Amino acid sequence: MARGVALTQLRWSDLDAFDHVNNVQIVRLLEEARVRVFWPATPAEGTAASTTFDPKSTVVVARQEIQYSQPIPYFSDPLVIEIWVGRFGGASVDIYYEVKAPESAPPASYAIAMSTIVFLDKETLRPRKLYEDEREFWGRFVDEPLEFRRN
Amino acid sequence: MARGVALTQLRWSDLDAFDHVNNVQIVRLLEEARVRVFWPATPAEGTAASTTFDPKSTVVVARQEIQYSQPIPYFSDPLVIEIWVGRFGGASVDIYYEVKAPESAPPASYAIAMSTIVFLDKETLRPRKLYEDEREFWGRFVDEPLEFRRN
Amino acid sequence: MARGVALTQLRWSDLDAFDHVNNVQIVRLLEEARVRVFWPATPAEGTAASTTFDPKSTVVVARQEIQYSQPIPYFSDPLVIEIWVGRFGGASVDIYYEVKAPESAPPASYAIAMSTIVFLDKETLRPRKLYEDEREFWGRFVDEPLEFRRN
Amino acid sequence: MARGVALTQLRWSDLDAFDHVNNVQIVRLLEEARVRVFWPATPAEGTAASTTFDPKSTVVVARQEIQYSQPIPYFSDPLVIEIWVGRFGGASVDIYYEVKAPESAPPASYAIAMSTIVFLDKETLRPRKLYEDEREFWGRFVDEPLEFRRN
Repeated sequence: MARGVALTQLRWSDLDAFDHVNNVQIVRLLEEARVRVFWPATPAEGTAASTTFDPKSTVVVARQEIQYSQPIPYFSDPLVIEIWVGRFGGASVDIYYEVKAPESAPPASYAIAMSTIVFLDKETLRPRKLYEDEREFWGRFVDEPLEFRRN
Repeated sequence: MARGVALTQLRWSDLDAFDHVNNVQIVRLLEEARVRVFWPATPAEGTAASTTFDPKSTVVVARQEIQYSQPIPYFSDPLVIEIWVGRFGGASVDIYYEVKAPESAPPASYAIAMSTIVFLDKETLRPRKLYEDEREFWGRFVDEPLEFRRN
Repeated sequence: MARGVALTQLRWSDLDAFDHVNNVQIVRLLEEARVRVFWPATPAEGTAASTTFDPKSTVVVARQEIQYSQPIPYFSDPLVIEIWVGRFGGASVDIYYEVKAPESAPPASYAIAMSTIVFLDKETLRPRKLYEDEREFWGRFVDEPLEFRRN
Repeated sequence: MARGVALTQLRWSDLDAFDHVNNVQIVRLLEEARVRVFWPATPAEGTAASTTFDPKSTVVVARQEIQYSQPIPYFSDPLVIEIWVGRFGGASVDIYYEVKAPESAPPASYAIAMSTIVFLDKETLRPRKLYEDEREFWGRFVDEPLEFRRN
């Protein structure tokens, strides 16, 4: 019952012509954090894995929301991305994120975000209910959902 | 008083390991549509431009929201991205988007999205009110805001 | 017996913090030109295709060489990328490229490049000889190879 | 007098539709290694720096050559990229790279590469001679240049 943490390196190429991390690249970093925390063992690394590797399933991102607080400069040390499950649907999870400064830098929060991930049957591409062991796996990362500022 | 339209090419590299356009790359395409419609003449192309090029100002993306309907395959013809201003704030505009199939393909709507763009004073990095001629420029692209599905 | 041509859009995000098209993104544009000219019909677009879609084969890039002449600014009109086969190997082709200014801009040549593409058997991942109809297909794009400046 | 080493994280998005690290992303990783080893302190991190930050100069990549040995799968641990100066020109350095498996994985060499970096006067954009202290700085990373397989 705790947030996961992904230590995620920036790349110089994440900077755009305004010389700070491009807003789209921040969405890219969220994806990378998600892979690092929730799909921790990849077939390439040769380990067995959770039901998130069920070969009869696939996942899609159905929705994302991102709120940026301040520009991110290039850091050579990895950003700290906290990531957790804020809400379970029948066939989906709402993943929340907070993007923070590297451990070696003064504390800063740069962005918060959420993604709705839907589990699909690979054949029919229709949503399918989360399995019990998936609920157990994702349940380890439950924390409060965030509120977004909306007009 | 009409939506702008950006004809935006996909790249094969927009596909991810699931073999359709990656969800983050769709946010990238929104950025490109925004540049093509609202920053139409760049200094590189040597033309004078609207107040969107005011050298004492800069802009930031403060918030984004994206809702994906269905996967996008690779098309060699450009996607049609409709883009418009759904709401004016004092120092910001809410830009809305709809990502559609190429004109040569069967009609399809792949995603809707919005970005809040804030105008800043370049020195102080504080929000500054939209100028009259900016309101006039952006006002040409006003249409209804979209509703997003939220839990 | 002629160079192919790919009209390839830039994206604002191809610019880096130096405010011109990043050297790595130029390699990305070469890839896109290659797909547009040599893999013209994709399964996604539902058409039959040349032997370049032989399901028992795959291709890899074995080698690339790029020589940059001058920085590329952002253009909204597509770059003109000329692309051709400069040399046949038993199981490979050497593809050459020249990256030029958009048709609407003053003439300029920005970069030349080459990539060696190797045809592999998908099962064994070993190089396999080009088929006759592949030689015919790729043979349509033959032109002189370029010389690169080397120290 | 030794190779520099950059521990450079992969991203899942570096994989392409063939499900291994895209050849262009490998060029991206070389760029990141170069920044990490040769531009170690960025203004964002608030430190003084070597003459590589001379404000009257800029650098461009004039040439690159990359030879790929085998596909790279996704690893969550960082790749080991060795990087060194293989040759000094009057106004340039030839940087060489070798891309290796993470320290936690079985040894593998995935690619070798070189980039020619030219030092320019920022005003005139003409090549300018390397300063003495630059030769000293870059001289710390001298090792043998690599030979590339060419047809």
